Parts: sequence; C-alpha cells; structure tokens
Amino acid sequence: MPCTVELLSVGNELLLGNTVNTNASWLAAQITALGAMVNRTTTVRDNLEDISNAVREVVGRKPDFIITTGGIGPTFDDMTVKGIAKALHLRIRLDRTALRMIREHYARRFPNRKVTLTRPRLKMALTPSGGKPIPNPVGTAPGVHLLIRKTQIFCLPGVPKEAKAIFRESLSPAIRFKAGRMVFAERWLRVQGVMESSLAPVIDGVMGRWPGVYIKSHPRGIEGGGRPRIELHFSISTSDSARAQKVLLGAMTDTIMKLKDFKAKVTKKR
Amino acid sequence: MPCTVELLSVGNELLLGNTVNTNASWLAAQITALGAMVNRTTTVRDNLEDISNAVREVVGRKPDFIITTGGIGPTFDDMTVKGIAKALHLRIRLDRTALRMIREHYARRFPNRKVTLTRPRLKMALTPSGGKPIPNPVGTAPGVHLLIRKTQIFCLPGVPKEAKAIFRESLSPAIRFKAGRMVFAERWLRVQGVMESSLAPVIDGVMGRWPGVYIKSHPRGIEGGGRPRIELHFSISTSDSARAQKVLLGAMTDTIMKLKDFKAKVTKKR
Repeated sequence: MPCTVELLSVGNELLLGNTVNTNASWLAAQITALGAMVNRTTTVRDNLEDISNAVREVVGRKPDFIITTGGIGPTFDDMTVKGIAKALHLRIRLDRTALRMIREHYARRFPNRKVTLTRPRLKMALTPSGGKPIPNPVGTAPGVHLLIRKTQIFCLPGVPKEAKAIFRESLSPAIRFKAGRMVFAERWLRVQGVMESSLAPVIDGVMGRWPGVYIKSHPRGIEGGGRPRIELHFSISTSDSARAQKVLLGAMTDTIMKLKDFKAKVTKKR
Repeated sequence: MPCTVELLSVGNELLLGNTVNTNASWLAAQITALGAMVNRTTTVRDNLEDISNAVREVVGRKPDFIITTGGIGPTFDDMTVKGIAKALHLRIRLDRTALRMIREHYARRFPNRKVTLTRPRLKMALTPSGGKPIPNPVGTAPGVHLLIRKTQIFCLPGVPKEAKAIFRESLSPAIRFKAGRMVFAERWLRVQGVMESSLAPVIDGVMGRWPGVYIKSHPRGIEGGGRPRIELHFSISTSDSARAQKVLLGAMTDTIMKLKDFKAKVTKKR
C-alpha cells in the first residue's frame, strides 16, 4: 500500500486566477520524491462552509496525510482552523505553545519594542482541540498538526516561503517515515515526428512487456514542418530502487527500438 | 445568484509535481473576467475510479458549469469521457460529428496522405450519450459538451494551447451569457512597513464601511530593514459596473487614510 497524500489549498486568489498554485506543484514534487503519492488536490475559497465541506470529504477518503495551505493568518478571512473544527466537530482553543511561539517570533523580530498580542495576533494561536502547533521557522503563524484516526492533518501557511520551510522541517520526515522504502523513479524521452495517436499502441506494448512501468505521453506542440513534439515520461514506484533504474532503462530502450519504424528523432531529456 | 463554475483537472503529471496547473489559473482568470465565479478546483490522477468519483461529487454540488481539462486524447490513460460516463451511468458511443471533425483535421494537416482511423484515433470520437463534440481549432481531439440537469459539462484537452482555443471559441460565450450583467472589478494597493496583523483591523473597518468590497491581504515578504511588504487586493462582484469602480476607489482611499497612522508607504499597483 503506497503512502497517500491529499492537498487542500484555501484561497480566493487561486480561484480568481491571480495566483498560480505553485504550492501544490512544489509540495507534490517533494511528496513524490519522498516515495508517497498525491492522490488528489482540492482548492476552495476563503469560505467557512466550503472549507469545512472539503475537509469532511478529504478526511472521509482516509489518506495517510492531508496537507492544507493557506488560511491560517491573522485576517478575518483566514479560516482554515475554523473550517477543520467545524468539519470534525472539534472545539477551538488558544494553544499555549502556539502563543509562546508567536511571542518569541515577535521578540526575535523586534528586539527593541514590545508587540502587543492583539486579537488578530492571538488568532494565530487558535488550534482545533487535539491539535498541536508546528514551529514556523520563517514567519509568524505556526502550522497545525492534528491526528484524526489514522490520518495526519498538517496546516501550512499560504505564503510559499513559509509553507516550504515548515514542510522541510516538520512534514518531510513524517512522510518519509510513513512511505518507508518506497521510491519513485522517472525518466524522459523526447520524440519528434510521430503523432501521439501513433505512439499509443507502442506505449501499450512497452507497458505490457515492462510491468510496473507507467508511460505517459505529453504533446508539446508542432514544429515547423508539421512534426509533432512529444515527451514520454517513464516512471515506476517500487521498494527496490536498484531494480527501478534497470526496469526504466529497459522500457526506454524497448521504446526507442520500436520507434525506429517511425523514422522519429528520439533523444533523452536531462 | 452568481454563475458558478467548478474545474476538474485530470492528469498524473499535475500530482507528481512535474507540471504546474496553469490551465486552472488561466481558466479561473478568464471565468472571473466574464463575471462568473470559480468555486472549487479539483485535480485527480488518470484513474477511472478517481475520475468518476470526482465527477459524481462535482455534479452533486450543481454548479452552472463544470470544465474538465485533460484525459481526452488517444492513449490508454486518457479516460475522462469514460469516467464521466461511469459517474453518471451513461453509455459511451462513437459520435459521427466528432469522427468527421477528426477526419477533417487529419485531411487538413496531411493533405498528401491518408491517415488511417486506428483504434486510438477513433477513441477521440467517443462521447457519453447525450454529449456533443466541440470543435478543436488547433488540435485533434474534439472537446465534449454535456448537459446534466442544469449543469453544463465541458471537457477540454490538457494541452494548454488547445484548451485555451476551445475555451475562447465555445465556452466563453456560454459563460458570458449565463453570467449576465455581473462584472468583477479589482484593484491593488502595495503597503510597505506594516505587519499583516496590524492591517487586519483596518481591513475589517474598511470592509464594514464599504459593503460589497472584499479586501484580501497578501504578504509578499520582508524587506531589508525588517519592513513587511503586503499587497492588498480590493474586489467587488456586481451588476453595476459604474458603481463598482466608484466603490473600489472609495474603499482604497479610506484604506490609504487609515494607514497614515502607521507611517506606511502605500502605492497603487498597475
């Protein structure tokens, strides 16, 4: 059983198209490299009902990890913690450890003046009951960690720098541990001069001969002379990393041989 | 009632982190500009069960439009049409119009040779019963249009160029028509030297005085002297476009006045 992860992004800006969700792709790449599998990502608006509905649905699918980004700051529309509490019928409490983290953050950042803990600042210490704060090494709002049955929920800030820092420090070890010995290996081939519809049966054949290898074709446009450019992505998830490379190379060589009939130009990428 | 849209992206590459989902942000920006509202986006793997579950859920939320991207090409793992049919208990049939579009596409692209309609090529003409093909002005696979009760489902290819072309030609008019007179207006302010937690009560106050205006703060990092940079996004959805601009300007001026107390540097963006 692979270690499964779902991402839940919260933020109007993502649904207005103002902001490209690079958090989701960055996290997905990290999680894949750790040997785990992202099954789904969901993005919702800064709306309590929408967040809590989405949380309830994601929790119901029982992934090993749920990672939320966004909605844990000081402003009125930061409501991820509230949404989680509503979805899971949990109370919200002011967490003492989170409060200490926030106080220490301000003390480090403004050594010469006292920052009053106003309501918006206290808000960042609110945690669903049973949750624990996660240190934020580069920003104010701590992350939140919560275990619901066998699913670990992690809430990260939406600011990419902060999300990345917390992920590296606190989530990455947890995911690597859960993923165990699983590794994800991948390679690319560039194919010029063959239509995707002509590649389809070649892919089917190679995948039949190399079980475990997944080949996905990505059309990348048409060149001057009407020659299509396609990238083939070869990947495998396995607990045997030595075999992974061997099998990928085998499948690639097999593909290259088959493509000789097509007078295609085939090159390795990277 | 605003015109609501949900996006459903299909593709392992998005969940491996290889590809940033720029289709989703591009579509969201277009849809917002047309006066409609994207409520949620979902991304799933190229897996029949996952696609059909997601389709069933999205349809259950009854948005006015569902736009899927990806999974309508010729290869084995293109299964969006199959996933929709499974979710909605529809049969799949070979659509004659789609077949004609595909045949004409090949005839245009290769005027001097006959492209045989192999199985992978015929696959692109498969449509759920009740569905209609949408012309693809720049690629092979036609889009699909399907009406389920009051929800219009549009399936677009994952290749950005093709998704954009079909959206512009066929979806954009349908969404604009449904959105009616609604417009979305937005403006930005750059604020330097105030923490987000200090801005929070200012935002609450301005929003209270300018009903309909939504203000969202986006922290953009810390400058040399420890001065935070924050962008404030002012937006409004309304059917009165003249009022929209007036109200946004009013809310911005109000914010600028309030920020005088903070010795902040405030500039207009764009």
